[in-house]
Amino acid sequence: MGRWEPNARGRLVQAAFALYGERGFEQTKVAEIAERAGLTERTFFRHFADKREVLFAGADALRELLVSTVAKAPVSLAPIDAAAAGLEAAGALIQEGQDLAQQRQAIITASAELQERELIKLASLASALAEALRQRGVNDPAASLTAEAGIAVFKVAFERWVDKPSQRDLPRLIRESLDELKAVTAGR
Amino acid sequence: MGRWEPNARGRLVQAAFALYGERGFEQTKVAEIAERAGLTERTFFRHFADKREVLFAGADALRELLVSTVAKAPVSLAPIDAAAAGLEAAGALIQEGQDLAQQRQAIITASAELQERELIKLASLASALAEALRQRGVNDPAASLTAEAGIAVFKVAFERWVDKPSQRDLPRLIRESLDELKAVTAGR
Repeated sequence: MGRWEPNARGRLVQAAFALYGERGFEQTKVAEIAERAGLTERTFFRHFADKREVLFAGADALRELLVSTVAKAPVSLAPIDAAAAGLEAAGALIQEGQDLAQQRQAIITASAELQERELIKLASLASALAEALRQRGVNDPAASLTAEAGIAVFKVAFERWVDKPSQRDLPRLIRESLDELKAVTAGR
Repeated sequence: MGRWEPNARGRLVQAAFALYGERGFEQTKVAEIAERAGLTERTFFRHFADKREVLFAGADALRELLVSTVAKAPVSLAPIDAAAAGLEAAGALIQEGQDLAQQRQAIITASAELQERELIKLASLASALAEALRQRGVNDPAASLTAEAGIAVFKVAFERWVDKPSQRDLPRLIRESLDELKAVTAGR
């Protein structure tokens, strides 16, 4: 792929997010996204299967970063801390695109269909995290529980962050939420 | 409502579950469910909005039991243990209908649409649990984290139970999963 490819993709994402915010997700057509980005519909479909997938385009990269960070974490780390390292890396990646993350959240919150899709993506993130922990030799149910608890920590931290992304640090909120989970499970 | 009402409802559930298992959820029509139950389509629609809702008919009762058990738990209980009391009560209710629970799980596992629906119901269970904890004076993010972690515990326990429901005790598995979560968050 040539150098223009990432630019086209980025322009399509920005155009789509802007239109979803202005008109609503349901009311926006692919042709309008392409036009706003100064590209053709054909180019849109070279990058995305449909208009919904524009909103979940980052999910694969996020999952890969999560899994590879867990895999590379020092063997001395306890499973929950290996999971936390992966989730903090994912949080840092999300934070790099904080304006898009905030726009995206507003679009998703406005649509029941998109909220469902978000839940599915989170569930598949939990499955990938559990599998990465099993690869480290963690047995079940510990692997599943650590992964599910890790995603819960991530979700709560993300919700606190996304309201005011420029004023808060997402990886730090993830670490704080994990500390809070440790406190609540210890019965405090 | 007369005494026949719960019977009609129960017959519709059994007929629907049997047909979904035999033919698949997608392939089953409401008319066929009604016929199998010896009832009319009109009666079906007096009980259920559509054929999908038959599978989630127990969700409201489950949520109410969860919430009321958390509300009635001794004030001395830590938030995580109040949540566990609610989840164990919900587990006991599910266990009462263990044959239906097992049939239901096989039907849901076979359908992406139903799996999405299940995730949404679990997310709304987590919200209800968080709200019940706030009513006990638990602040956020502790309330949200305890609820999300509690639902993670419930999910993992349920998955272990539903394979062989007659050989295992769901409330006990919930308690064991919580103990496991306490161990993993303590870094063990």
